[in-house]
Amino acid sequence: MAEAPRGIRIDGARLVRRLEELGQVGAIAGTSGVARLALTDADRAGRDRVVGWMKDLGLEVTIDGIGNGVGVRKGTEGGPPVMMGSHIDTVATGGRYDGNLGVLGALEVIATLEDARVTTRRPLAVAFFTDEEGSRFQPDMMGSLVYTGGLSLERARATVGIDGKSVGAELDRIGYAGEAPVGKAAVHAYVELHIEQGPVLEAEGYTVGAVTGVQGISWTELTITGQSNHAGTTPMSMRHDAGYAAAEIAAFVRRLAREIGGHQVGTVGMLNLSPNLVNVLANRAVMTVDLRNTDEARLEEAERRLFAFVEETARAEGVAVARRQLARFAPVAFDPHLVGRVEAIAKEMGLRVRRLPSGAGHDAQMLAAVCPACMIFVPSVRGVSHNVEEYTAPEDLAAGANVLLRLALELAR
Amino acid sequence: MAEAPRGIRIDGARLVRRLEELGQVGAIAGTSGVARLALTDADRAGRDRVVGWMKDLGLEVTIDGIGNGVGVRKGTEGGPPVMMGSHIDTVATGGRYDGNLGVLGALEVIATLEDARVTTRRPLAVAFFTDEEGSRFQPDMMGSLVYTGGLSLERARATVGIDGKSVGAELDRIGYAGEAPVGKAAVHAYVELHIEQGPVLEAEGYTVGAVTGVQGISWTELTITGQSNHAGTTPMSMRHDAGYAAAEIAAFVRRLAREIGGHQVGTVGMLNLSPNLVNVLANRAVMTVDLRNTDEARLEEAERRLFAFVEETARAEGVAVARRQLARFAPVAFDPHLVGRVEAIAKEMGLRVRRLPSGAGHDAQMLAAVCPACMIFVPSVRGVSHNVEEYTAPEDLAAGANVLLRLALELAR
Repeated sequence: MAEAPRGIRIDGARLVRRLEELGQVGAIAGTSGVARLALTDADRAGRDRVVGWMKDLGLEVTIDGIGNGVGVRKGTEGGPPVMMGSHIDTVATGGRYDGNLGVLGALEVIATLEDARVTTRRPLAVAFFTDEEGSRFQPDMMGSLVYTGGLSLERARATVGIDGKSVGAELDRIGYAGEAPVGKAAVHAYVELHIEQGPVLEAEGYTVGAVTGVQGISWTELTITGQSNHAGTTPMSMRHDAGYAAAEIAAFVRRLAREIGGHQVGTVGMLNLSPNLVNVLANRAVMTVDLRNTDEARLEEAERRLFAFVEETARAEGVAVARRQLARFAPVAFDPHLVGRVEAIAKEMGLRVRRLPSGAGHDAQMLAAVCPACMIFVPSVRGVSHNVEEYTAPEDLAAGANVLLRLALELAR
Repeated sequence: MAEAPRGIRIDGARLVRRLEELGQVGAIAGTSGVARLALTDADRAGRDRVVGWMKDLGLEVTIDGIGNGVGVRKGTEGGPPVMMGSHIDTVATGGRYDGNLGVLGALEVIATLEDARVTTRRPLAVAFFTDEEGSRFQPDMMGSLVYTGGLSLERARATVGIDGKSVGAELDRIGYAGEAPVGKAAVHAYVELHIEQGPVLEAEGYTVGAVTGVQGISWTELTITGQSNHAGTTPMSMRHDAGYAAAEIAAFVRRLAREIGGHQVGTVGMLNLSPNLVNVLANRAVMTVDLRNTDEARLEEAERRLFAFVEETARAEGVAVARRQLARFAPVAFDPHLVGRVEAIAKEMGLRVRRLPSGAGHDAQMLAAVCPACMIFVPSVRGVSHNVEEYTAPEDLAAGANVLLRLALELAR
């Protein structure tokens, strides 16, 4: 583990213990994985654990209307805090590190300052934001979006999830519809420690990533309506097969990403056919298309070409397509000064560091709308994430948390 | 309605009443459709209704080990009966005619003979065969396959369905594991009246189809295993996306059918992704491929080309594929003499008739292994079948049943 050249450093073993302990909440039996979809009973249990730790560390905890939790450690002066944080919800088959590292790394920074009896000038805050993953309720990053005023609390509460339940009803049910206001965030600066969730840092031998920004994200749901019919007796030329149209579109998404090239990625992760029987043409297919690019113009080009292909395929097959935008975020650039400080601090600590964009969406991109924001990445083994096999080595976790500690102290002193 | 030139004819209104009444059992609310998946409670209720009608008509009813029901009307002599029949199970979103017409048309023939006090030399039998559709338990046509000795009762009972329940347990539960033996069918001849389930007769203005045979059927289940990963951070070149591989294969099935041409059809009706989330690459896709052709050599060519494409796609994407044959039947030719008699009788009755192959599998193809067998088709409006909108006009139903009556009398006298 690289050490801070001067002064205090975090306790890597304590950080790992907290990650392991939180990973037990909603653990997927027989794996290291975790299932804590937003606002489920498992998410409530995870929240309770983190709020408990915040209180043990003497933080003053508030919960806002969308269920974001913020723990504040007083500074010698008042004013907006330097905020560290991330999220603790996971995808249905997630790992222990995605999101959790940013929250528990921030708690570890607080614990380290407590141990060293260091008081900062500005307040420090640790935040966990609701429904970052978007796996149950869309859009993703809902909590930080509401926090920063990008979505009204009313609309967010009315959002219906994949299981037919609403955000509002589930917040009420788990007791996390708090009273702190949303939409008027006052934050001095925001720093988020996160695993890369991609393969670049490990493959190139870097310990720290200074994240330059976040890819733009476009999520579209397509509902294709055709004609159910007998698979044996319907001539190929007379078919209106929603399943076939969906397959052509999903295959096209791969070609599209390859052709646009650069940082363009495209994924069809969800696809449901009805009636979904071996010998019946599907009369209905519902699918999602996830497109991302660091360049807004190219992302728009990808959307245009996708939608044109969808129309063309629907016309050729004689099926109808309804299109719904599930999420759309333009690319975000992080604060250049903060990105430079992440890079400089890592170098001072003797850590190999490179600049890179984030391929995933993060709460930091929402916070970037209201304050200087940045992210610190640490490597993901084999780039695996959103998967029970997600893993980051303890020395890399500690390295990232030490950069977080140093930058938070610099911003709050 | 065309009338028989001489002698008795069936009561078309009574036939329609029985079809409507049976269509109420398992009716799908707000539609004319029916859901009576094999061996469900709805199927039991349908069976009870049909057995009741058989008994009302004085038939001697037996149920065999796989749940096939046979009602026999004595002839003046003994020996193997002339059998009419089909099935009464439906797909999950089926219509009132598929299968049901063959069974209720046969009951209408019996009722007509009762009314006219006509006794035949040979016995006449009405049969309904278990799980013809294969929507719950595979292979399809299971009841007639077991009846004719093509599958052992033990293996059939051990078959596990889409809901995890076995054929044996469900037969026992609904009280249709009967004592009549299976595997040694003694049948003089078999005639099955059925809707076309395709668009040809209606499109070309025919009332009756003299079915020359049944397409060969190949059902394959593919289980594709890749690597779950984050949709935003995983470069396109590093993906092992089971969902993408499934989409490419499903799109290929359409190209394959078009390229082989002729009577070749190909369908991907079922496709399930895991974890099936918008922002996660699927690590698992399970899909079915349904290939059919009247020509065995071309069907084998289609299978070879499909399997080669599957291997190639799997290799390129770095995913594993497991292949399982769910059903495989070679094309079947019906008895040339009986096909000629269907054609001649229809002409004598003044009905427009054409020969055509069946694109769907039918119980008659199993019976063809043990006795002369044939089928009589009547038009399906717009070719729609395996759909709640399935419909055949009352005059076409009656025309088909009159051909059935005439042929059964000819064979049994």
